[in-house]
Amino acid sequence: MTTLNDGWFTEVFQNEGTAFSLKVRGKLHEEQSEFQKLEIYDTETFGNLMVLDGCVMLTARDNFLYHEMMTHPALFTHKNPRKVVIIGGGDCGTLKEVLKHPDVEEAWQVEIDERVTRVSEQYFPELCESNGDPRANFFFGDGVQWMRDIEPNSVDLIIIDSTDPVGPAEGLFALDFYRDCMLALRDGGIVVQQSESPLLHTETIIRGIHKDMKTAGLAHVVTLPFPQPVYPTGWWSCTMGSKTNPLHYFREADAAERPFVTRYYNEATHHAALAQPQFMRDALED
Amino acid sequence: MTTLNDGWFTEVFQNEGTAFSLKVRGKLHEEQSEFQKLEIYDTETFGNLMVLDGCVMLTARDNFLYHEMMTHPALFTHKNPRKVVIIGGGDCGTLKEVLKHPDVEEAWQVEIDERVTRVSEQYFPELCESNGDPRANFFFGDGVQWMRDIEPNSVDLIIIDSTDPVGPAEGLFALDFYRDCMLALRDGGIVVQQSESPLLHTETIIRGIHKDMKTAGLAHVVTLPFPQPVYPTGWWSCTMGSKTNPLHYFREADAAERPFVTRYYNEATHHAALAQPQFMRDALED
Repeated sequence: MTTLNDGWFTEVFQNEGTAFSLKVRGKLHEEQSEFQKLEIYDTETFGNLMVLDGCVMLTARDNFLYHEMMTHPALFTHKNPRKVVIIGGGDCGTLKEVLKHPDVEEAWQVEIDERVTRVSEQYFPELCESNGDPRANFFFGDGVQWMRDIEPNSVDLIIIDSTDPVGPAEGLFALDFYRDCMLALRDGGIVVQQSESPLLHTETIIRGIHKDMKTAGLAHVVTLPFPQPVYPTGWWSCTMGSKTNPLHYFREADAAERPFVTRYYNEATHHAALAQPQFMRDALED
Repeated sequence: MTTLNDGWFTEVFQNEGTAFSLKVRGKLHEEQSEFQKLEIYDTETFGNLMVLDGCVMLTARDNFLYHEMMTHPALFTHKNPRKVVIIGGGDCGTLKEVLKHPDVEEAWQVEIDERVTRVSEQYFPELCESNGDPRANFFFGDGVQWMRDIEPNSVDLIIIDSTDPVGPAEGLFALDFYRDCMLALRDGGIVVQQSESPLLHTETIIRGIHKDMKTAGLAHVVTLPFPQPVYPTGWWSCTMGSKTNPLHYFREADAAERPFVTRYYNEATHHAALAQPQFMRDALED
């Protein structure tokens, strides 16, 4: 066995040779859904913890980093984001951040596993507080198929808030999927994908996303690193692809005067996330 | 016990309710020095690992993040850094980065535990490759006393590359020590201190460093976050204090055209490190 003693939840990253543990008071919930094993733990210092198939998904304490960085940089880069689609994101934290933007008129959360959302409503109510917003729409089913069927030129922003590129989410890290996203986007549209750890995955997953997004026709692609303590290396990223407009310009004044509260994101961390560490420059530049 | 089974090194952060583990092939070295227990492990994926009194100090794989960010931002912020003092830094990685700057004429490493340096020469030779540089000077002894005795107005940059602010390093996170640093600095001088985790320590340690540096007379103070996977939360920081010159200006062209190799640092990540996450702005602004 590879666990700490009683009182700890441990996720072992066998391929990476690392493990991360959180001290827990107890398990609040466990079920086997149609798609995966869902567990909720009560941790001593990070609040509630969601685990899917043994992998840490989020904690109450630090998910703000991920959810803010998956949304606000893209939303403030797009000139007028009215319709937003989230693929995955069943915990509703991404949806909540999207709906903070008053210019968003319609948001869809397309999650394959409805149980993730139902469990989140119970154990992460703070992430689900915008689920009743009249602009919020939910579809529970296959995001790959949903994106294949969507009306062309109908979406401004697609956020791929998925699990790792193995198992159910594999189809969301694929050229065909990006092609469907490309068709779905209006002019000026943006796709943003969670893209794993800069330290571990720049040469593999991140480089692959860049290549596939460009092959799919996205004119500009950039990876934004950000801290995420409960994921491997504590360092994570999202990758934005833009149909037409460059990604280094953004609505900076709007970001600085945003009419809502954030904890990590602001106009300065937006710029900061666009800075490429030297090893990423070296690995990703054309 | 709180370890994973055989084959893992685990550091438990009891107060933080977290633990971090690295898969190890074996222990290469162990000794009790006059000051602390030193251990070196051979890890499967992070290269050699140095542990002091049970705490992860550095690995071969990811120390570049810490060492580059403890040095190059301050060196490229100072207009003409000729004399540099490192307090702590026994592994010599900070010294190596400092000596990459051709304008540095004299560098001192003031480390209390000579054994850390001797063991590093054996197990981290890549960090010690500049130890024979004619500009490199070593003093093994108490950094607090050394700084008290130094000639006033004689140093351009002081880098406090210490362990956590408990035990031997406690005196390096103190108002009296910053006062001695202030006296030692020439006009335009800068002090930079490793300042723990933004997520865990902004309200406690980082805020205290800001207050003490300002009380000691440093006119400008700013905290620079950066990733550091093997430290708690995977997110770390240094805090710069400047005697006279603002810290948001730097020799950007020199940084962009630096005549040496870096892996994280460049002129873009320099700017990025100056961006304050919103919660740090809220906690640290005057």
